[in-house]
Formats: sequence, C-alpha cells, structure tokens
Amino acid sequence: MALIVQKYGGTSVGDVERVKRVARRVIQARLAGHDLVVVVSAMAGETDRLLALAAQVSDSPDERELDVILATGEQLSIGLLCLAIQQNGQKARSFTGSQVRIQTDTAHTRAKILSIEADRVRQALREGAIAIVAGFQGVTAEDEVTTLGRGGSDLTAVAMAAALKADVCEVYTDVDGVYTADPDVVPEARKLARISYDEMLELASLGAKVLQARAVEYAKNYAVPIHVRSSFNMSQGTLVVQEDAEMEKVVVSGIAYNKNEAKITVLRVADRPGIAARLFGRVAEAAIVVDMIVQNISQDGTTDISFTVPNADYQKTMQIVSEVAKEIGAQQAVGDERIAKVSIVGVGMRTHSGVAARMFEALAREKINIMMISTSEIKVSCVIDAEYAELAVRVLHDAFGLAEGATVEERW
Amino acid sequence: MALIVQKYGGTSVGDVERVKRVARRVIQARLAGHDLVVVVSAMAGETDRLLALAAQVSDSPDERELDVILATGEQLSIGLLCLAIQQNGQKARSFTGSQVRIQTDTAHTRAKILSIEADRVRQALREGAIAIVAGFQGVTAEDEVTTLGRGGSDLTAVAMAAALKADVCEVYTDVDGVYTADPDVVPEARKLARISYDEMLELASLGAKVLQARAVEYAKNYAVPIHVRSSFNMSQGTLVVQEDAEMEKVVVSGIAYNKNEAKITVLRVADRPGIAARLFGRVAEAAIVVDMIVQNISQDGTTDISFTVPNADYQKTMQIVSEVAKEIGAQQAVGDERIAKVSIVGVGMRTHSGVAARMFEALAREKINIMMISTSEIKVSCVIDAEYAELAVRVLHDAFGLAEGATVEERW
Repeated sequence: MALIVQKYGGTSVGDVERVKRVARRVIQARLAGHDLVVVVSAMAGETDRLLALAAQVSDSPDERELDVILATGEQLSIGLLCLAIQQNGQKARSFTGSQVRIQTDTAHTRAKILSIEADRVRQALREGAIAIVAGFQGVTAEDEVTTLGRGGSDLTAVAMAAALKADVCEVYTDVDGVYTADPDVVPEARKLARISYDEMLELASLGAKVLQARAVEYAKNYAVPIHVRSSFNMSQGTLVVQEDAEMEKVVVSGIAYNKNEAKITVLRVADRPGIAARLFGRVAEAAIVVDMIVQNISQDGTTDISFTVPNADYQKTMQIVSEVAKEIGAQQAVGDERIAKVSIVGVGMRTHSGVAARMFEALAREKINIMMISTSEIKVSCVIDAEYAELAVRVLHDAFGLAEGATVEERW
Repeated sequence: MALIVQKYGGTSVGDVERVKRVARRVIQARLAGHDLVVVVSAMAGETDRLLALAAQVSDSPDERELDVILATGEQLSIGLLCLAIQQNGQKARSFTGSQVRIQTDTAHTRAKILSIEADRVRQALREGAIAIVAGFQGVTAEDEVTTLGRGGSDLTAVAMAAALKADVCEVYTDVDGVYTADPDVVPEARKLARISYDEMLELASLGAKVLQARAVEYAKNYAVPIHVRSSFNMSQGTLVVQEDAEMEKVVVSGIAYNKNEAKITVLRVADRPGIAARLFGRVAEAAIVVDMIVQNISQDGTTDISFTVPNADYQKTMQIVSEVAKEIGAQQAVGDERIAKVSIVGVGMRTHSGVAARMFEALAREKINIMMISTSEIKVSCVIDAEYAELAVRVLHDAFGLAEGATVEERW
C-alpha cells in the first residue's frame, strides 16, 4: 500500500462528465489499496472566464483581489470531485489552500510556497478518506488568499507529495508521457520510461509543455518521484526521478524546440564593463524575460551582443534596445522574429564528448544555418530560421538514434 | 460621519454592469464621508449554476462539500466589486467569511452565526478602505466552510452591523421599501416610513420577500436599525426599528398573503394526550415545516386537527398523515392545495380591540369563506380559497384604511 498524490489538470476536469471519469480513476487506485491525495486545477476555461470578468470591471486589477477571484476556480473543482467520489460510495474530503495551510509569501498571482502543514490531510487519510486538495492556491501568514501562477497546480501536487513523503506524485495530462521529441513532428518519437529532473527541467523550459518547471525544481529538491501519465488511458507514462548511472549512458534523451521567441542583436557595442548590465537592466525593468544571451570576443574594441525574448515582447524590446544602443554609442540594433530554438538535452553529455559537433554536422548536412549557439552542462541549443524548425528536430532525432527500435550503438 | 453597512443582493450584482453601478453607489456614500462595510451576495443565477453542477455529479450532495462549492459564488462577487471600486480610485478590500471570522456552528448549508471577530474589517476601515464582505458564508471553529442558507446575506449584513455597532444596516433590494400590501395587488398600497421588528418578522414570514426573517430577528436582538431601500433609485425606503409609542397608534401596518401553502385536516381524531405529538412528530421526521396549526374543542371525544404546509411538501405530507390517521384510528385525512393565507399585521393590535372582528366582517361582505383562523399578539391570519386571495388583500387594505391619503380616523 502506497501513499500517492495524483494531480489532474483543467482539461481532465473540463466538464461534469470528465469530473466523473476522474472520480472513477481515483477510486480505482483507492480500491487497489492506496492512500490518495488528489490535487485538481480549475475546470478548463474557468480561470479564463474569471479573468475576463475581472477585466470587465478593471483596467489593471489589483492582484490581491484577482487572487480572491481566481481561487474560486479550484474551490469549485475540489467540491465537485469530492461529490463525484462520494457518489460512488468512497469517503472523500476537500481542502482549500487555506485549509491545508499551504503557506506562501505575499507575491500575489505568483506566490512561492514557504511551508505546508497538511495536518488535516493526514487526519483525513487516517480516517480512510481520499483527500482532495485545491491546486494553484495558498494563503499568507496573514490569511490572505494567494495563487501560485499559471501551472501552479503541478507545484501544489509536488509540494504536497514532499510534505507527506508520498511514494509518488502522479501528474495526469493529455499526453501519455515525455517523448524524445514532439510526436507530431517526429512520428518515430519514443516515450521515455525515465528521465532525470535536470533533463526534464531543460525540456520543460524549452517548450515541452508537460510539466511546469517550478514543480520539477521543487521535486528535485525534495527528491519527489513524478510519474507523468495520461488521464485517458492506463498505460505507464514517464518517471521523472533522480539521475543514476544508467541514465548517464544515454547522451541525448530528447530534442526540444521553441518557435515563440525572437532574436535581437546589438551591433558593435563598446567592449567595456557595465555595458551589458545597462542593456539588460533596462530590458528587465520592463519585466521582459530574456532567454539565451550570446556575446562573442571583441574586435577593434567592439563586440556584438545577441539575445532572445518571447515573441510577444519583441516590439517593446526592440524599442528599448534601440534607445539604449543610441545611448551607449552602439552601431545599431537589429532583430528577427522568424527564428526557432532547437535543443538537445541529456545528462550523458557531462561524460561524453563530441555531442555538440554531431549536432552541428547533422544540421549542416541539411544546409540549416546556425545563427546562435548556447550550451549548458546537459544541453546544446541552436537558433535557426523558423522555417527549418521541424526539419531540424527530425534530423537531430535521427542523428542521435532516438527512434523506437534504434540499436544501443545507434543511440547516443 | 456614520458607519454604514450596505447589503446588495444577487440581482443588484447580477452582471458586470450592475457590479459597476453598485460600485458607484458605494463610492457616493463614501464621498459623503461615511465609513462603509458592503456585504454582497453571489451574482444572480450563480448559486443556481453551482447547485446544478453539484446535482450533475451527485444524487444527494454532501452538505460540507456543497458549502465549499456554494461559497465560491460570493467570493467571486466580493473580488469583482472590490476591483470595480478600486477602478474608480477608492481604496477597497475584500474579505471572505473565513477571513472575517464569521464563526458559525457546524450545520452545513443552514449554519447559525455564533460570533464575528471582524478585526480585519475594523483595520481596513481605519486605513480608509471600504470593506467588502462575502455574504451568506461563515466558517466553523475547525475552519470548515459553512453557508447560512438562502437569504443568508441579509443575516451577514445585520450581524456585521451588530458586531461593528454600525449606525444603520442598509439592505438594497429591487423594491423601494416595505408596503402596506403588495403594490401589484393593491395599487393604492403605501410605502411605510417605519415598521417595528415584530411587524417586519410577521410580514417576512408571511410572504413579503423583502427581508429574511432570521436577519430581522437578529437585528431585533441587537437593536440594529435596518433601512430597506431600492438599489435602482435614491429615495428613502423603510426603516425597520424598535417599536415605539407612535407605532402603537397604528393598529394594522400591513396586509400579507401567501398562496404557496396547502391545508390538511385529520378528521375525528381521538382527543387524548400524545396524539398531536405523534402526528406532528412524524411530519417533522420528514423535515417538513408546518406553518399554521388549528385544533378546536372536541365533541364526542374526538376533534379535527388542521394545519398548513408548503405546497411542495403536500403530496408527501398527505401520505404520512394518511398512515398516521389509520394508526391512531382517526376517521380520515383530507387536504386542499387551492388555499391562500391572508394576514393583517400590526403592533397596535396589542392595545386595540375588535381588530379580528373587523377583518372577518370585511371578508364576509365579499362572501369570502374563512376555512381556518389563527392569531398571534400582532397578527390575524385567515385561510381562504386561493381564488379570492387578491380580492381579500384589497378588501382588507381598504377596511383598515391603509391607502395613501386615508385620514387618520379611517386608518386603523
């Protein structure tokens, strides 16, 4: 008998019929003898409905009040799921973030979890009930309602699992696991049985929309095993766990890509201390999140600085950067919205050489030009023309032998 | 400068435009220099939507979970109203029942208020903010979410006013006060400037849907003045206050009627101790609320017992009563769904005689047959054929001189 935390997203509880289906699934696990804590999101569309209502009464809604409004979405879900489970004869009890004492800081709409009491959840489990916990929400020390930001329900689930020392945190999604690449792009993509936290983090932030990055980080810190699986079938999904020797044998675990970024380059910037700080300070002031930053050695006392930002922030960033470029006496700022970032990820890179070279070769064979390169310990990312994104993913998937049925020699 | 508690019902905040209108009205009072606590209900239709969702997942929803679900309705309202007020440049802060510590007993879906802390509301007022409080909801000592039953927002408002020693509790409705009779039935009906708690209680429970009876009771106990007024115009409404000498001069303040009851009579019941207890005990077990009960003296050792129940419970009650009638050897049970209860209400009855007689005469003049009579200190109710309900109300309104412009002599 295990203690299992299950998390169901908004799509899984999108309407009454789906809530009933989740209830049946939860009961199935209960009847198998497990203790269960179930974390649910708001029904799909509900959060958007609430945000739309808020937008109709306020141009710039106060974040404290926004949290009060948004928290109702999950509160409705836990009540409904609880009723659906009880309807099938099982004991269940719902808990809001406030009732579970998911204590957060005071950063409304993007709060951080500080601690979880969970005494009432333990009590419910002792009494043989299934505990249903509202995802996405918490409460400050002053009893103010907070929310954890979009995707925060994953975080709630992992944090609950850590607090309760659960055996596993099962995250139910509309895909049945983590794949070596997007199966829509690469038909031969293979579902990974296991993946390390670090790899999952790189994949999460690189655009594989399976798990929220903060949740993976939290799981890593508390060594919570996450099982990513489908809410539509019973097949085993992907386990996200601590790295082990076996994993290091696989050099590349997956290929990710992201077409939602734009590239900006400031040409011929004076190569002296403080210039980069000034440039990126001004961008940060506008609350724009910069992803890749690349700067090469200088020639003639000047250098070029390139970086990427979300497409949505492109116009605003160009405006800021053009101003700064003038101020610091750079030649000019140029940008490109039609780019894609393609990345290979794998903990095995730490101990294997020639990985980046193989990536560049594979792209070169297809005459795909590389505009920017950035690497981390377990990742190599290249910025290329957006047009070739899907082709690049397929080529790399093949080059690193990730397909189903590829021999171990072929598989990097 | 006064401390005012305002209460807006579901219709007043029925959509975004109405929420904005309420915000403007609240701000108007704020700019007049008053401290304001505003209690709001769920948006019209929201509670029904939530109940319908619950009904779709459960045949007999657990009341604890139902409260978790229902409480989201008011939580949404307070957030939206707060944002709408802030949008107009005024400080505002929302509070759920849990945050205000509106502590109740554990009777889910119909909880009683035990105490109100309201420290956070006082703090908000000190900081110059308008406090927006969720109506209808509370929290148990164990931090369980409870609701106060339909119409509970009135109770929240009055209880808040009592806890804060507010100068007045303004209840905004879609009518502009309490009338001597339903203006749809009696065009000459007159708006009352003042009415006593006891009269309002009789009128509330008799079918004038302006104020919830429990709220009036609470207001009476804590001497909270209630101002019933329209949310659609600025005119003075009706003050519900403690009785004074002036009020006693008016014998009849208003005429109420109710067509939603049915009458049941058990014929020739043995007139011995315990029979009535047995009969009404069985009805109570089925959670059916009995209104009037009339029993006359016995003849030949038997008597007839008549009583009224809500129309919705008529079939069920008849079934129970027929069984009990057999068990106790009564002749039979007969019932009638087509009845109306017409009542005259006034604190002046305590000190005036001949009031009931005048009522019976007035009905007799129109050949309206009286089926049952029941009286209290300040009320006389008659059950008549439903067909004559409106006619009876008009006749009585006239007989007691309640119309606008009636002279004091005419006015009883």
